[in-house]
Amino acid sequence: MSTPDPTGLAPGATLGILGGGQLARMLALAAADLGVRTHIFAPEPDCPAFDVAARHTIGEYDDEAALARFADAVDVVTYEFENVPSATAAFLAARTPLHPGARALAVTQDRLSEKRFVADLGLAVAPFRPVDSLPDLEAAVAAIGRPSILKTRRFGYDGKGQVRLAAGDDLGEAHQAIGRFPAILEGFVPFSREISVVAARGADGAFAAFDVCENEHRDHILAFTRVPARLAPAAAAAASEAARRIGEALAYVGVFTVEMFVVGADESVIVNEIAPRVHNSGHWTSEGADTSQFHQHVRAVCGFPLGATKRRGEIEMENLIGDAASRWRDLLAEPGAHLHLYGKRDARPGRKMGHVTRVLPGRR
Amino acid sequence: MSTPDPTGLAPGATLGILGGGQLARMLALAAADLGVRTHIFAPEPDCPAFDVAARHTIGEYDDEAALARFADAVDVVTYEFENVPSATAAFLAARTPLHPGARALAVTQDRLSEKRFVADLGLAVAPFRPVDSLPDLEAAVAAIGRPSILKTRRFGYDGKGQVRLAAGDDLGEAHQAIGRFPAILEGFVPFSREISVVAARGADGAFAAFDVCENEHRDHILAFTRVPARLAPAAAAAASEAARRIGEALAYVGVFTVEMFVVGADESVIVNEIAPRVHNSGHWTSEGADTSQFHQHVRAVCGFPLGATKRRGEIEMENLIGDAASRWRDLLAEPGAHLHLYGKRDARPGRKMGHVTRVLPGRR
Repeated sequence: MSTPDPTGLAPGATLGILGGGQLARMLALAAADLGVRTHIFAPEPDCPAFDVAARHTIGEYDDEAALARFADAVDVVTYEFENVPSATAAFLAARTPLHPGARALAVTQDRLSEKRFVADLGLAVAPFRPVDSLPDLEAAVAAIGRPSILKTRRFGYDGKGQVRLAAGDDLGEAHQAIGRFPAILEGFVPFSREISVVAARGADGAFAAFDVCENEHRDHILAFTRVPARLAPAAAAAASEAARRIGEALAYVGVFTVEMFVVGADESVIVNEIAPRVHNSGHWTSEGADTSQFHQHVRAVCGFPLGATKRRGEIEMENLIGDAASRWRDLLAEPGAHLHLYGKRDARPGRKMGHVTRVLPGRR
Repeated sequence: MSTPDPTGLAPGATLGILGGGQLARMLALAAADLGVRTHIFAPEPDCPAFDVAARHTIGEYDDEAALARFADAVDVVTYEFENVPSATAAFLAARTPLHPGARALAVTQDRLSEKRFVADLGLAVAPFRPVDSLPDLEAAVAAIGRPSILKTRRFGYDGKGQVRLAAGDDLGEAHQAIGRFPAILEGFVPFSREISVVAARGADGAFAAFDVCENEHRDHILAFTRVPARLAPAAAAAASEAARRIGEALAYVGVFTVEMFVVGADESVIVNEIAPRVHNSGHWTSEGADTSQFHQHVRAVCGFPLGATKRRGEIEMENLIGDAASRWRDLLAEPGAHLHLYGKRDARPGRKMGHVTRVLPGRR
């Protein structure tokens, strides 16, 4: 089992994961299927992933002594969130393989560099302008118009660090609302659908995308994913090809997700965001695809062959947010529903507690 | 999430598991999906299940202080092997719910009581006689004939504690070979197929069987399972009904497995053995059924509703024994093959290192 392999690790290896939330938890469960041990590194004392990992280290991401011990104890490091500090990534990468690599983090951590990167690939993005000051914002609004959205360049998620600008809104207030951080103004995209492509790229350059997902958000949080997306085949192919080019340009290793908007009668695809990680919109793959996104990510970062991404039916994934998980008994009693709970103790409003996947055999 | 429920536990509860091998490991992985924490109790210092459980206790099964602490720390106890000492079961059952219960253990730990129990239900079993001495053995052989099989009443598995008696074999040597333990002589069943039924019974009496499995053994170890078994519908129904009656008579709670022989052109079903636990012949359910046997067992012992057992295709499960797991890279590269490795360090001959499941969509 521990036979060394020139192209990667072997089962028996230890995968280090930065972050201890539900994504790390589901990665650890998948790793176990493949005989890969996991070691979680996270600052919080009580993480969902700790319960299913062989080891965990509680430490801050700038605790170099703890990071060094962690790096020594694992064979490869990955992460469940894109806001890994660049100094942490560099520190670890100097000691052990880090997948996805520092470039993927650098590009995707900053909305401005991300937008420029995507635009430079010739892929469509919303109009955007950097905003470092109120005068910048005024100039950006003059150029892009309204409605538009002011977003911090860093550390935004689930709608945090964003403010929408409608006609008549006070720009100074908006700038204040996002804390005057370095920001970006993006033109509002009048989309007909939100979609995402969850895909993997291997160290050998192999690329494998899951079928395009159609996503519905409520209060800026993913509520529902339907697969396949209701989309013409050409638009789905364009979305998948955009993801392939992004992965290629980043020399990416692992699973990543590209969120996109579909616009107009011709179903143009506009790239919105890249997540350098497994993604909530890919949770359906655990039951709905031949290989789950979690298994796929473990395969990729360990240098194992990528798995088949074939879909098993028509799929719906519903997030269980806050109190919604109190329906667990009904969901367990529903034939064909697959319940996943994350082991979180407190069901706070807006907190992702679990999800349920339904695979309808009718349509492939 | 921790809402008390009159009919059972809730997610957030802790499931204690006696034994730390691959069955406990796969139970722990399934429990995590359902938000149930696991605590493994096992004597060995380095168990496959420890890597995926929230807690583990290393202790002997007669260490009452350790057992008492374990019982205090969990909400329900189950086990991955049928040879849990009855004193251990009684000690734990006095402190915390134990599923399956003491009666299931008592009946199935002893081949003689098991055979009598099954025969008393009016189900077919091989002819059998108790053997406590060499004269007993001589009388039993006179009554049952040869070929027949002398088996220890307790602690046999994977062909250990058994000796086959052919014409002319010396009975004293055979009695010596099984260590002169209390034994049973069973008539040899000239079977055409070996099958098993993996089924669950809930605390509320609900019963759910997976489709009948057809099993092939090599060197007394399960090598291969095919589902559905190549069997007439009436024989499959009889096998499932036998399992239902066994579960009912044991007032069983959890997943159990009934191994059977199929005999003759009319495909009569003869009950061979009952395993009060998830079973190697049910490993295919992880990909091949709507609910895996591991999820089903966790549901049953926690008092959750049983899940759907619908099969997803035509299924083959191959055990990876000893060196066979060194093929892991080829198996990962095979489209549609699902590899499971148990995280064991040494690939000793005869040791179960993992398994691979193939789901062929053609036939349901």
